[in-house]
Amino acid sequence: MRICFIGDSFVNGTGDPECLGWSGRICIAAKKSGCDLTYYNLGIRGNTTQHIIERWQAESKSRLPAEHDGKIVFSFGTNDTTIEAGKRRIELDDSLNNTRQILSLAQQKYPVIMVSPPPIADVRQNLRTQELLTQIELVCQDLKVPYLDVFTPLQASQVWMTEIATGDGAHPSAAGYSELANLVQNWSVWSDWIFSK
Amino acid sequence: MRICFIGDSFVNGTGDPECLGWSGRICIAAKKSGCDLTYYNLGIRGNTTQHIIERWQAESKSRLPAEHDGKIVFSFGTNDTTIEAGKRRIELDDSLNNTRQILSLAQQKYPVIMVSPPPIADVRQNLRTQELLTQIELVCQDLKVPYLDVFTPLQASQVWMTEIATGDGAHPSAAGYSELANLVQNWSVWSDWIFSK
Repeated sequence: MRICFIGDSFVNGTGDPECLGWSGRICIAAKKSGCDLTYYNLGIRGNTTQHIIERWQAESKSRLPAEHDGKIVFSFGTNDTTIEAGKRRIELDDSLNNTRQILSLAQQKYPVIMVSPPPIADVRQNLRTQELLTQIELVCQDLKVPYLDVFTPLQASQVWMTEIATGDGAHPSAAGYSELANLVQNWSVWSDWIFSK
Repeated sequence: MRICFIGDSFVNGTGDPECLGWSGRICIAAKKSGCDLTYYNLGIRGNTTQHIIERWQAESKSRLPAEHDGKIVFSFGTNDTTIEAGKRRIELDDSLNNTRQILSLAQQKYPVIMVSPPPIADVRQNLRTQELLTQIELVCQDLKVPYLDVFTPLQASQVWMTEIATGDGAHPSAAGYSELANLVQNWSVWSDWIFSK
């Protein structure tokens, strides 16, 4: 099985001294459980839904040839809600249109799941991200794409909130990424998914 | 500093239960030494020089914005020398033309280094790969792209040769990737490079 993790800096694992992030950690655990998988990390720092629209098809096509079992995990959203030069990078409606376009095209070709963006150390941006992810969840429900909210449990996680506050304000270190990894790993959709054919 | 590692399954770290490969391992070590780096692994299983020509520019452009210090490590070659349906996947001259095209274009935009392909458990293919890498080294010399031969020391490494033979015939496990990582990590060009601005 070959899995592409497509998204932003949290998918990349930015700030993790162990160069794994949450996606690397869940793949190690899956391998330990006997899943034969190839791990493609396609997280890019600063990526909005607009960036992802422009690259996800080419990047997954070259990694997921038809003769192998290929799957995609998406996780994005935070960069859309960043204010840059006084303006939100991607307006809410555009974020949702982009998300719908990405997921609906992707699910025609591959099994697809979506993991929500996590909270950062900026209370106002978190409110915008929360508004966005509530809407993303509805898009996922409508498309029947399994969706996991990691935002809510991470906001209650002392490890996550402390590491992002003492780090660069957005990215945790190893313990924070482990927390996020555990949430995905304990999600029955993920565990069923990696052992399905 | 943001570094793209572009190449094949050995760059991807295929077969590594720790999901790091050699590129992840050297990035962890660089971070431990105080280098602030973002690690982008762009190794794809089965990629020949022809596949890499078609994707490296788009994939590195989206990861290495001009305002950040971006660098590229290339490592490829083995898949070019594979025999498929009785025919070499990429003929020697084409491999060399592709390599020259990739490296000469890349070095106009980014600092670039090249790591040779490693040996596999197929003696005949190794002879073809050795012929190719001797020529790739000359291309690198001509373009003044720093080049590291890991093939020769890995062929003498019991750990590497045993792991690839007991694995799938090409990819090692964690110890083999650590051996390869150590070779790159002890290369003065790499250590100078990650601490240069």
